[in-house]
Amino acid sequence: MKNAVLITIGDEILSGNTVDTNSNFVATELKNIGIKVSQILTISDEIETIKKAIDSAFQIGDLIITTGGLGPTRDDKTKKAIAEFFNDEIALDEVTFNHLKAYMERRGRLEILERNREQAFVPTKSKVFQNHYGTAPCMMMEENGKLLFSLPGVPYEVKPLIKDQIVPYLHEKFSLNYITTRIVSVVGIPESILADMIEAWELALPENLALSYLPVGTRVKLRLTATGENEPFLTQQLEEEIQKLLPLIKDNVIATSEDKIEKILAEILTERKLTLSTAESCTGGELTKMITSVSGSSAYFLGGIVPYATEKKIEILKVKKETVEGFTVVSEQVAGEMAAGCQKLFNTDIALSTTGVAGPGKGEDGKEVGTVFYTIRVGDQAVNSKLYMPHLERLDFMHFVSQKVIQDLVAILISEEK
Amino acid sequence: MKNAVLITIGDEILSGNTVDTNSNFVATELKNIGIKVSQILTISDEIETIKKAIDSAFQIGDLIITTGGLGPTRDDKTKKAIAEFFNDEIALDEVTFNHLKAYMERRGRLEILERNREQAFVPTKSKVFQNHYGTAPCMMMEENGKLLFSLPGVPYEVKPLIKDQIVPYLHEKFSLNYITTRIVSVVGIPESILADMIEAWELALPENLALSYLPVGTRVKLRLTATGENEPFLTQQLEEEIQKLLPLIKDNVIATSEDKIEKILAEILTERKLTLSTAESCTGGELTKMITSVSGSSAYFLGGIVPYATEKKIEILKVKKETVEGFTVVSEQVAGEMAAGCQKLFNTDIALSTTGVAGPGKGEDGKEVGTVFYTIRVGDQAVNSKLYMPHLERLDFMHFVSQKVIQDLVAILISEEK
Repeated sequence: MKNAVLITIGDEILSGNTVDTNSNFVATELKNIGIKVSQILTISDEIETIKKAIDSAFQIGDLIITTGGLGPTRDDKTKKAIAEFFNDEIALDEVTFNHLKAYMERRGRLEILERNREQAFVPTKSKVFQNHYGTAPCMMMEENGKLLFSLPGVPYEVKPLIKDQIVPYLHEKFSLNYITTRIVSVVGIPESILADMIEAWELALPENLALSYLPVGTRVKLRLTATGENEPFLTQQLEEEIQKLLPLIKDNVIATSEDKIEKILAEILTERKLTLSTAESCTGGELTKMITSVSGSSAYFLGGIVPYATEKKIEILKVKKETVEGFTVVSEQVAGEMAAGCQKLFNTDIALSTTGVAGPGKGEDGKEVGTVFYTIRVGDQAVNSKLYMPHLERLDFMHFVSQKVIQDLVAILISEEK
Repeated sequence: MKNAVLITIGDEILSGNTVDTNSNFVATELKNIGIKVSQILTISDEIETIKKAIDSAFQIGDLIITTGGLGPTRDDKTKKAIAEFFNDEIALDEVTFNHLKAYMERRGRLEILERNREQAFVPTKSKVFQNHYGTAPCMMMEENGKLLFSLPGVPYEVKPLIKDQIVPYLHEKFSLNYITTRIVSVVGIPESILADMIEAWELALPENLALSYLPVGTRVKLRLTATGENEPFLTQQLEEEIQKLLPLIKDNVIATSEDKIEKILAEILTERKLTLSTAESCTGGELTKMITSVSGSSAYFLGGIVPYATEKKIEILKVKKETVEGFTVVSEQVAGEMAAGCQKLFNTDIALSTTGVAGPGKGEDGKEVGTVFYTIRVGDQAVNSKLYMPHLERLDFMHFVSQKVIQDLVAILISEEK
């Protein structure tokens, strides 16, 4: 199997200013064509550091993909480092320059600055992949059958370069093994107990299959990966192993194919033609965003509301004033009335609601940070739940709770089916 | 200055299943106490690979922090690798075991499985930092003045361990340099032109100051970092340089301290006592989430609505049916009426609206993927804008648009002030 090393170049990642999302995207795309990422390295924007990293990466991988360090400003040194590493010169590439000129003209920039022109300079031995969404081209160097691709760092430039140009190129260049993956989502069993329950099955897995445990909130994702030359055979192998696994943990499995909980929900709602709406307070839009992040969600998701101020819960969702006064706004009762009001406002089969204190400041009624009440209303049945997650930071809290609400809804819908 | 290397252990990151957010968090926290992260390395869960990575990391850094690979399941090998690297044995630590027992009892798990008990086994030479939010403790090894901390991989366990225990420990252990940072947010100038405009200033910066360009959507963040022993002096140095910079690009600067656009907005709205509401379609909750992600946002943000289905825009926001029929739902006119309806529904000074096609599927009225209209309504003044971003994936599109809307609002509010 071919091995890749990803090198992320940029002080903004080392300093914690930016989260590296490129590596995740590139790793996923490479996995799909059977290339394994064996290392991801983030380094600073210094010529010697970059050269050293390329050198050590070539000792591990057949293929290096670097991102970052190709912008038009003074702090970018990747191109120079690459030329030096391969004993090459940098020169103006006419094709790239014309592409760049056309790109800038389309964006109304008729004058090409010296700084921009510099971006059309590439190592003379490089093969260029033109960047249709930015000014820095992707350059490929080849030596002794090993490849280095150098890409800019902006995620929306990286994605099309990888997907539309580099992946097809690699697929043609190498004859690759296939890697196929299935994810089994398990709820209601802690990881360690689950591991005991399926130990015998795990130990008996064929050699080309690997199992990983990925805890996500209160769900455990079992990832089963098969590697080999024959793709249909791998698919069949995975299916057979999952069929052996299911009887061991049947009641706790909520999905055996889709990975993300919001996609699992999408499958169920689409199939059963159910509609959904949301009323969020402490999750602040995150729950709605998770749901709408699924392409096609408009088929079942009719709308959401974030009545952040208490009086908006009363005015728009018809939460009773007495309920707020009697139980405070962070209460099971208010969550229940929010869900009922939401279901009515959007006229949906299912309504979800959250009310809590995301922190770090205390809520207006003094409820403890990390407390949340949520209601899942399916038809005229309401399930009320409480969570207490004081250790999560604000955004993590919003995400964790949203995920848990969707997960609980999935569990309810599945148990109805059984 | 002390140097750190972060090692992330886990096949789930190399395979693209999980985004590594721990490194970002740890890097930020270390930066705040003057420790520089010089490398981030992600490797797979194999004993030899882990040992090699530790070895090469100690050649660069004074300090290694590993995350991941400490779970109770079969695929975790970090602890063994560490013990082997330091020629140590693993043995049961009574204090850790009692901590673990108490932790599990608090969570209602009275029977301790063999697998869980294994988590209280640590290298005999290690100093243990107890984990209050999970079962795997943090272990520290020390050799020749160099430190290695090994942490579990779950982000909400990593954060308190780093923040409450490791950072204070390091602060006491080393006498550290300070690193101070200021971010200047610039809009309306492309990066390359900006670089030309401030070139002379940049070249004249004192040696202990470093400048980086961080493009975020259509905004460029200039990050100015100062390193030295005297914190008040660094703060003053940064302020002086920013005062020299401002006259060069004054009209394009929207902030000189806060970093995130939603926090810049928070400052302005809080200071001017303005209230805000949102009505989102194609951004699906992301805009609202960005706004509520700021602690204290309930002071100015009264509420948001995501009327995803067209009829909900008509029913709840009073968008006119004729407007939808005449101009389609993805139009300047609908965006304008959504903002007006939203302002009325939530009774706020400012209302924001978005309507567009996030893709990948086309919108119901055939508008092209990546098209979005948005309205910013301040008082009775409305500004309508259009964006066309066909190359962004669904979630990136939702985020990019949300960011741009907030950025435009900030620019409007600042230009009003001037």
